Amino acid sequence: MSDGTALGPGREFDLIRALTNQWGDLARGVGDDAALLDVPAGEMLVVSADNIVEGVHFRDGWLTPREIGWRAASAALSDLAAMAAAPLGVLVSLSLPDSWLSRVEDLARGIGEAVASAGTVIVGGNITGARELNVAMTVLGHCARPLRRSGARPGDALYVTGRLGGPVTAVRALEHGETPPRRARDRFAWPEPRLRAAQWLAANEAHAAIDISDGLFADAGHVAAASGVRLVIDLDTLPRLAGVDPATAARGGEEYELLVAAPADLDTAAFACALALPLTRIGRVESGAAEVEATLHGARVAPLDGFDHFS
Amino acid sequence: MSDGTALGPGREFDLIRALTNQWGDLARGVGDDAALLDVPAGEMLVVSADNIVEGVHFRDGWLTPREIGWRAASAALSDLAAMAAAPLGVLVSLSLPDSWLSRVEDLARGIGEAVASAGTVIVGGNITGARELNVAMTVLGHCARPLRRSGARPGDALYVTGRLGGPVTAVRALEHGETPPRRARDRFAWPEPRLRAAQWLAANEAHAAIDISDGLFADAGHVAAASGVRLVIDLDTLPRLAGVDPATAARGGEEYELLVAAPADLDTAAFACALALPLTRIGRVESGAAEVEATLHGARVAPLDGFDHFS
Repeated sequence: MSDGTALGPGREFDLIRALTNQWGDLARGVGDDAALLDVPAGEMLVVSADNIVEGVHFRDGWLTPREIGWRAASAALSDLAAMAAAPLGVLVSLSLPDSWLSRVEDLARGIGEAVASAGTVIVGGNITGARELNVAMTVLGHCARPLRRSGARPGDALYVTGRLGGPVTAVRALEHGETPPRRARDRFAWPEPRLRAAQWLAANEAHAAIDISDGLFADAGHVAAASGVRLVIDLDTLPRLAGVDPATAARGGEEYELLVAAPADLDTAAFACALALPLTRIGRVESGAAEVEATLHGARVAPLDGFDHFS
Repeated sequence: MSDGTALGPGREFDLIRALTNQWGDLARGVGDDAALLDVPAGEMLVVSADNIVEGVHFRDGWLTPREIGWRAASAALSDLAAMAAAPLGVLVSLSLPDSWLSRVEDLARGIGEAVASAGTVIVGGNITGARELNVAMTVLGHCARPLRRSGARPGDALYVTGRLGGPVTAVRALEHGETPPRRARDRFAWPEPRLRAAQWLAANEAHAAIDISDGLFADAGHVAAASGVRLVIDLDTLPRLAGVDPATAARGGEEYELLVAAPADLDTAAFACALALPLTRIGRVESGAAEVEATLHGARVAPLDGFDHFS
């Protein structure tokens, strides 16, 4: 942690001390200009950056500070899961308005819980003053055999982890000033990066994966484009929270589940047993133009846009 | 680049396209959820995060968008220099208010110029909407033998690269609505990460280094604390821009020069010849309590605080 201009040196160091106290053994190597890490021999480094901004990714009052911290870290870690990488560490850069100083320890607690839950550590970061809360996370991982967007092959089946529609349901309720159903809100506030699920899938011959943070349909489009294949999704089969219609589940973003292309004989029961998480077959990969086709009750439906962002 | 909620998918992808056009071959591997990199066998990964916020690290009108981009990338790369690491790549996360959309290509140009000047590439990042500009950079590097803050030993001499006092002089003028001297402004707007200098120093038996982004005196305190030694700095010897007094040069932050502890017989002439940059001996390392003592005209002066931040 090296900067913190607006806070002034004393206040910055007090804050860093409060955060490292909160994180305890989870915070490693904070102190030099940069952190030093070892990547296992023969493996690749996997790295991704993400950030969330108050008023953009959530509105005041939607989430507790602890939930914001969990969500920021988990959303970033989800990009490692999408590549089937094992985490090496995260960097946390906090831009904090004065109004957030009293809540920063709860924010840090949520970040720490997500980092611990993923079995990794905090290796560095930065604190600065700002007029709005901006939590920037960089996640580092390693893997020998990454799952990429470009690996889907004609003949593969398409699968999705978990049950969709929670975040979009929660956000719609919150936008209308209503209390979201508890399970939908939990899926929005406490997303789980599918790190172990992805490693199971990579070890069991999956060919491609992506996290569906932009929504299933939009992210399926990214796989189609990167792999040069046509994806056909049967909306009737989408695993959904109770009360969510298929089109909403296919369009809703902020999911952090995985869309996977893998052989049609993938043992979904073994996956569900090993991970305590459903893995549902939802379609197939065909040769053809790079596009996504969705069917509902056997009939093709008009192309669906990606997540209707709530900003 | 994976998110961008407030911008909406179309606008986000247009922006990413504009940036990748601006960066050309400098942008690599943008497309998957995370970037894949190789760390040379037997070397360590070095990683650091930094960010700058408009209104905190600079005020509207002080810097052009291109200069803001250069400065953000160079300041982050300076943390790799401080460890004597060679850069592997950078991640660029931009939080952009609408008022910045017309200037983002100039901002990207400055980032690209700094990245190219450091001989590295842009391997990922993120774009999102925001109410204030926040440029977050993560820098990745590798090294076999890092220079740490903790390596200073009694008997070492202290050295500093470059000439100090430019940024503080520029900021003081800008704060008073005056036009800063050109050379002082250049040192503020176009800092150069001392990557090659640090590698030369590591190869020539330097023991410790830090970048003096918090000001020489404050960062000397970090070296003293981490190394458990007393640093004695002779302010009369500080290399300074013309017209800058020694105390100002010792306190002024945002420098991005290196403070180095190395044997007293380090060949500073060979350094200056190889790097086209002065390396000046400014003091010594002694055993004793971890603190920094400054002398001026042979007399000890009162402890100096760190950089007086301009927020």
